Amino acid sequence: MKVAVLMGSPSDLPVMEEARALLDRFGVDCEMRIMSAHRSPEEVASFARSARERGVSVVIAGAGMAAHLAGVVAAHTTLPVIGVPVASSPLGGLDALLSMVQMPPGVPVATVSVGKAGAKNAALLAVEILALGDEGLRKKLDAYREDMRRQVLEEDAKLSGA
Amino acid sequence: MKVAVLMGSPSDLPVMEEARALLDRFGVDCEMRIMSAHRSPEEVASFARSARERGVSVVIAGAGMAAHLAGVVAAHTTLPVIGVPVASSPLGGLDALLSMVQMPPGVPVATVSVGKAGAKNAALLAVEILALGDEGLRKKLDAYREDMRRQVLEEDAKLSGA
Amino acid sequence: MKVAVLMGSPSDLPVMEEARALLDRFGVDCEMRIMSAHRSPEEVASFARSARERGVSVVIAGAGMAAHLAGVVAAHTTLPVIGVPVASSPLGGLDALLSMVQMPPGVPVATVSVGKAGAKNAALLAVEILALGDEGLRKKLDAYREDMRRQVLEEDAKLSGA
Amino acid sequence: MKVAVLMGSPSDLPVMEEARALLDRFGVDCEMRIMSAHRSPEEVASFARSARERGVSVVIAGAGMAAHLAGVVAAHTTLPVIGVPVASSPLGGLDALLSMVQMPPGVPVATVSVGKAGAKNAALLAVEILALGDEGLRKKLDAYREDMRRQVLEEDAKLSGA
Amino acid sequence: MKVAVLMGSPSDLPVMEEARALLDRFGVDCEMRIMSAHRSPEEVASFARSARERGVSVVIAGAGMAAHLAGVVAAHTTLPVIGVPVASSPLGGLDALLSMVQMPPGVPVATVSVGKAGAKNAALLAVEILALGDEGLRKKLDAYREDMRRQVLEEDAKLSGA
Amino acid sequence: MKVAVLMGSPSDLPVMEEARALLDRFGVDCEMRIMSAHRSPEEVASFARSARERGVSVVIAGAGMAAHLAGVVAAHTTLPVIGVPVASSPLGGLDALLSMVQMPPGVPVATVSVGKAGAKNAALLAVEILALGDEGLRKKLDAYREDMRRQVLEEDAKLSGA
Amino acid sequence: MKVAVLMGSPSDLPVMEEARALLDRFGVDCEMRIMSAHRSPEEVASFARSARERGVSVVIAGAGMAAHLAGVVAAHTTLPVIGVPVASSPLGGLDALLSMVQMPPGVPVATVSVGKAGAKNAALLAVEILALGDEGLRKKLDAYREDMRRQVLEEDAKLSGA
Amino acid sequence: MKVAVLMGSPSDLPVMEEARALLDRFGVDCEMRIMSAHRSPEEVASFARSARERGVSVVIAGAGMAAHLAGVVAAHTTLPVIGVPVASSPLGGLDALLSMVQMPPGVPVATVSVGKAGAKNAALLAVEILALGDEGLRKKLDAYREDMRRQVLEEDAKLSGA
Repeated sequence: MKVAVLMGSPSDLPVMEEARALLDRFGVDCEMRIMSAHRSPEEVASFARSARERGVSVVIAGAGMAAHLAGVVAAHTTLPVIGVPVASSPLGGLDALLSMVQMPPGVPVATVSVGKAGAKNAALLAVEILALGDEGLRKKLDAYREDMRRQVLEEDAKLSGA
Repeated sequence: MKVAVLMGSPSDLPVMEEARALLDRFGVDCEMRIMSAHRSPEEVASFARSARERGVSVVIAGAGMAAHLAGVVAAHTTLPVIGVPVASSPLGGLDALLSMVQMPPGVPVATVSVGKAGAKNAALLAVEILALGDEGLRKKLDAYREDMRRQVLEEDAKLSGA
Repeated sequence: MKVAVLMGSPSDLPVMEEARALLDRFGVDCEMRIMSAHRSPEEVASFARSARERGVSVVIAGAGMAAHLAGVVAAHTTLPVIGVPVASSPLGGLDALLSMVQMPPGVPVATVSVGKAGAKNAALLAVEILALGDEGLRKKLDAYREDMRRQVLEEDAKLSGA
Repeated sequence: MKVAVLMGSPSDLPVMEEARALLDRFGVDCEMRIMSAHRSPEEVASFARSARERGVSVVIAGAGMAAHLAGVVAAHTTLPVIGVPVASSPLGGLDALLSMVQMPPGVPVATVSVGKAGAKNAALLAVEILALGDEGLRKKLDAYREDMRRQVLEEDAKLSGA
Repeated sequence: MKVAVLMGSPSDLPVMEEARALLDRFGVDCEMRIMSAHRSPEEVASFARSARERGVSVVIAGAGMAAHLAGVVAAHTTLPVIGVPVASSPLGGLDALLSMVQMPPGVPVATVSVGKAGAKNAALLAVEILALGDEGLRKKLDAYREDMRRQVLEEDAKLSGA
Repeated sequence: MKVAVLMGSPSDLPVMEEARALLDRFGVDCEMRIMSAHRSPEEVASFARSARERGVSVVIAGAGMAAHLAGVVAAHTTLPVIGVPVASSPLGGLDALLSMVQMPPGVPVATVSVGKAGAKNAALLAVEILALGDEGLRKKLDAYREDMRRQVLEEDAKLSGA
Repeated sequence: MKVAVLMGSPSDLPVMEEARALLDRFGVDCEMRIMSAHRSPEEVASFARSARERGVSVVIAGAGMAAHLAGVVAAHTTLPVIGVPVASSPLGGLDALLSMVQMPPGVPVATVSVGKAGAKNAALLAVEILALGDEGLRKKLDAYREDMRRQVLEEDAKLSGA
Repeated sequence: MKVAVLMGSPSDLPVMEEARALLDRFGVDCEMRIMSAHRSPEEVASFARSARERGVSVVIAGAGMAAHLAGVVAAHTTLPVIGVPVASSPLGGLDALLSMVQMPPGVPVATVSVGKAGAKNAALLAVEILALGDEGLRKKLDAYREDMRRQVLEEDAKLSGA
């Protein structure tokens, strides 16, 4: 049970590290890979086709501009594929967002928010998916939610007490 | 093992029927529900909180305009939540898309394309998720992909033969 | 007679301080709170449901990205709810703006400009609402307007005199 | 205690009728007026300046394109002004929305959704404001909310029972 | 024969200085003024109504956000009014551009590019208008064009010679 | 003293007829021409270069998509050039608007609203420019404004009297 | 010497027929094919890899939504690839445009306008490319340009003569 | 066999240098020129009309704002013209992109991504076009692709080995 975290270029790494950090926190095994839908398309296809049998359960793919990576992976596997749009052009990430989310009928990409927030949420979504078959993960998710809630309550107490 | 298909209003039904039809084709049990993040928020919260124990594995939520439904469901469950933006305002669905996909860190919504294509893809994504623990579904997914591929080849043959 | 100023995260505080400063200037009591539609949804619901009886007359809610906070508050109260979109993603606040303003029929959010200008205007709008039942406030509003006008005249005199 | 419903042109009437219908339902007195920030600016200014003393408590203004009507009214009164962007150009209402909501600091316009949904919500927002000083209206609002909720439950029952 | 250069706020001055500099270069008399469609609306109306008889031939108005200044001036005069959208919000000037250019039929605003380029072009447009009745100005315009052309040729020579 | 009304294609005629009708109403001589910045560029250049000596005072140019016509005309004359963006692609006129209004410093295009409203306003702007040197036209403009105002008052009377 | 015209779905055929018609007019051999970057990715890859040796000189690819077809073809060949964005979602073709044009450095797609205008221009661009090595084609291009010019002149004569 | 690299202003040079560097790497002769569709239109027209006979095979044109340069060149030649949108206004390059890509039927511009990525891709596209008649260039393109692929594999190895 493993999550693959792909990115189209090393420049996406600072964003995609958010996914790794979150998966680490949940003790979910994670494989970070750089591969490009345009510069190494055969590696992407062969990675996607063999991912399931190599133990990957969910693929997270981050890319910017005409962000095809998630869609190309999804074309070669029926594993759930999560797309993280990266804002790496002057168009502010709208290009990557639309290139990922607007997949034609038949081949879905589960798209999350642009940038670091999205990378974190992609990892959480992967954990939610894995937790369907893993009671332990589910409990960690509940605890994580509770932690977030507590943190908000503390921030609130600090502000409204001030 | 069941998928809940929620929508914010009966006017979303023609779009969300695409999800039901796809789930039916895969033999996945599906519960169609109308509930509104704004007009019946307590029903949404209580539905979301009890969904897992009532046998729901994945929630699909379709909504238009300031489409909060998916995000509000996601706030009350750690099940995977898939959002389908519906184009029901003059802004062409950009409002619903951004309201769904741009979730803050901590609570993901897996967003798919705007409209009917998205409703179909939401159902496929749900099947992909369920198929992680169900060898039979996985084979059906492979067959579905192969069907799509064959259909494209036939359309191609018809066009290029003409 | 009190205005509640909510924000989804401590990172919204520099923006929302503009609202507090304005309310202070008008001598309107103000309760600053951090609560999140997604990370502490029950606190938001219970805050909204009890706000009126706790003396709150108007709720101001600032949030970024898929800014659901104002809409979720509005779903649980019939107090006037004012939304301040915060620009906290690469999409420049368009995401927060559309997520707030495009509320479906039945549950309004009074949306103001993106960012600090909006936070200030949200507070002024709250004062305008409270002033409907408070002659003193109304006079302060008139004076504030007159001050603004005088400031513009002075700036004009300085420029055109130069 | 009266709500003024302004529009920039007779072509906005089908949209703004939604506001009148809602105010009628709540028994709130309503004055429908056509006036244009550009074609009859003095009428707008003099209307706005005298509105409060003529018994108007809230102004709703609907306009399309470079929708200045709400902002110009707001410049001449400290009554709460609600703006309804109307989609009357090929730009889909984005022009009217930004022209209304992005008011500079000092003069707020409470902006609601584009088109008919917005006109209805503008009226509801006006009722919410008036209800701060009117227990009867507040009860009607609660009943209205409860009606909406019941309607959603019935639609849900019809769908999920089918 | 004079050009009035208005701006909604002192923060627009660095942009609008481009207009003054250009008008100076052409020896066209220029009156720089700060006035606000929202904070000093009566000054704007009275300025616009008396502009022609005070010797103003063209009005240039720069403003940001819901940039109503040019439209409000245009509502009170039949002098040509030129609008300069200023990018002063996170929306990158799109708000000011649409608020200026999308004037309803009957009251035009001649809109130019966002920011400093626009301020310069507004002044040039004013000069082009004045030159219709002033042979001397027309010759200066021709010379200015020729200067620009020569500058491009020199830049080209420098680059292609390198 | 003549206004040239150019359009890039016969399909722009229904839009640009609005300009002709308005100019006719003011008794301003008008020359309607079809010429294309891309398909007949030399005609455009030679038209623009000779326009002034042929008695043209203002050029109005309507075009859709990458609407270069107004800018190309402006590059070849120092007459005032007014651009009318036509919505003739699926992008709703935003393409034509940005292609016209965002002229680089040195060569202005006076851009008005998208479509028929813009064509009418372009003609009015031309009349405003011509009226600077023509007392008769100025009076007609005042009368036109007064007519518009009266029409709004009548529409208002009809509505508020109903 | 052949041009391949690909499309992602039979629904793109009415748009892409414009390309075929234009190529026919120039006597350029054309192969119309349906293949999908997502539903038949291996066919796309193998088509692209073998295209050059099968006599294809230029590839035109039309697709809608997250239009990956052109980019995926470009990833597998160094032939020039021209992309035609098709407007087949509520987002008006902006999704397809950004998904095609915003290719990352290293793998270009020559993108043309959205829809039928783009399909025609894609074919013309292909002819321009082929004409670099074909004097006959170059002459046909000159004649085509001259025809277009003449057509504009005739339309102009008809309009200005009326 | 030469590629002309045009730009509208010296400020575009840092972007367009990417094209020169790439062409140098492929040993393709390159002529860098500054010329402006608006400030030196006759130079642009005469350059475009004589380009082919002066040995230019492909024209690359970079420009910002209402980026007409590529379209104006294309209007005067039937050589392939490639457009590079430059982000030089607050609108983030969307203005330049739409002004280039949305060419009307009959005169194509091959548009690539906004900014430096686009300049590099424009050069690569030019090389792909030239390689149709030059076996040596084709082999260099294959090698370049292989280099890119190898670089991605190395980056991947470094990351996944870490």
